[in-house]
Amino acid sequence: MHTGDVRALVFDVFGTVVDYRSTIIYEGERLNNEKSLHVDWASFADAWRGRYRPSMERVMRGEVPWLNLDALHRQSLDELLTEYAVDEHFDEDARVQLNRVWHRLQPWPDAIPGLTHLRGRFVLATLSNGNVALLVNMAKYSALPWDCILSAELVRAYKPDPRTYRMAVELLGLHSHEVMMVAAHPEDLQAAAAQGLRTAYVPRPLEHGPAQSPASRSTTEASFDVVATDFMDLARQLAV
Amino acid sequence: MHTGDVRALVFDVFGTVVDYRSTIIYEGERLNNEKSLHVDWASFADAWRGRYRPSMERVMRGEVPWLNLDALHRQSLDELLTEYAVDEHFDEDARVQLNRVWHRLQPWPDAIPGLTHLRGRFVLATLSNGNVALLVNMAKYSALPWDCILSAELVRAYKPDPRTYRMAVELLGLHSHEVMMVAAHPEDLQAAAAQGLRTAYVPRPLEHGPAQSPASRSTTEASFDVVATDFMDLARQLAV
Repeated sequence: MHTGDVRALVFDVFGTVVDYRSTIIYEGERLNNEKSLHVDWASFADAWRGRYRPSMERVMRGEVPWLNLDALHRQSLDELLTEYAVDEHFDEDARVQLNRVWHRLQPWPDAIPGLTHLRGRFVLATLSNGNVALLVNMAKYSALPWDCILSAELVRAYKPDPRTYRMAVELLGLHSHEVMMVAAHPEDLQAAAAQGLRTAYVPRPLEHGPAQSPASRSTTEASFDVVATDFMDLARQLAV
Repeated sequence: MHTGDVRALVFDVFGTVVDYRSTIIYEGERLNNEKSLHVDWASFADAWRGRYRPSMERVMRGEVPWLNLDALHRQSLDELLTEYAVDEHFDEDARVQLNRVWHRLQPWPDAIPGLTHLRGRFVLATLSNGNVALLVNMAKYSALPWDCILSAELVRAYKPDPRTYRMAVELLGLHSHEVMMVAAHPEDLQAAAAQGLRTAYVPRPLEHGPAQSPASRSTTEASFDVVATDFMDLARQLAV
């Protein structure tokens, strides 16, 4: 498919750009050592992320007022610390600090070199359910070279709500076919395509850990404008 | 005054970071050569900027629906091309191109080194009446090292409306006293201070050209947390 009109790339972040699971495990193991705990942080990370979608859906159904992702992460964290029976080891400061692990997520190894190549030709923006502060702090901590931080928070709706994709197109001052959504998640790309955006699918088979069998790819790949193995491959295919 | 709590600096852009007048004159002189015109671009630049505040005030009074700054600049440009009797020399493409001079504004000489120093210690964001696309394109064109693009467009209100300053504090996830507004314009700083932000005044005596006598400074300087001669001086005073 013709992608020569593309002027800006907008990126899903959690799982697509950064490896939240490994970062949470890494920081969690350090907490185990510091506090003499025995938490299984791989399981904890999966459980924390498992509450991500349901927590956003409660907001989008109007069951709770608008809460940004920091606040949703914090609610889930408080619940999980109780479930894992480590409540008394985490005072308020420790909870604030642990909740901010989402501001310190580490990029996949190809992310920074790939983005650096792509940035010479395209405007690069986030288009994440993470709130603006989270994305700004992560970019600074992990040296992600964004031109612009765009967040679902700006329209107080979470992806895959159509308003999030339309907001990105409008704020970038472009036509929808000039904007390409880059994500590891087919449902995000399909929702973007429904608003006229171009799509690049970059599967991240390790997002859910090495033991997880990756989702079946063949059924959806054909519907995307580009399928790339990583961000360097994306740069090559977009002729950067 | 104590400024040790400051975590983020938010910058006025037109006049504070970039020298719109010189850039418009520079590009205009090239148009004079290309099109054999005799436009006085210094006067044109002043007239264009002169329509900035009144055009935003028409929006804020509700006399016209929301228009972003690109659209307001374009309305003013069309009027001025008629006033300067050069209408027939600018077709639609030429008008689009000239209007985008605001996306290509050149920084004051201290801006990039100063911002680069400051970025090691603070989150750096725009807080401009320029729309997001304008600010993103300008940052890319002129290599301005922002961590985040914040624009009055995000709340569909123009500075000095209080919502613009509160939006910046909220999206950055900070308290108002942790955010410092940096501007060359006292009224912008006074409006920021009224919302609890810290203030840094960086006068730009050449904003309106070498012939213009700078505004009297002594009456207002005492009310700002920092007064700096340029962004390098600001970095020194903030102990970067």
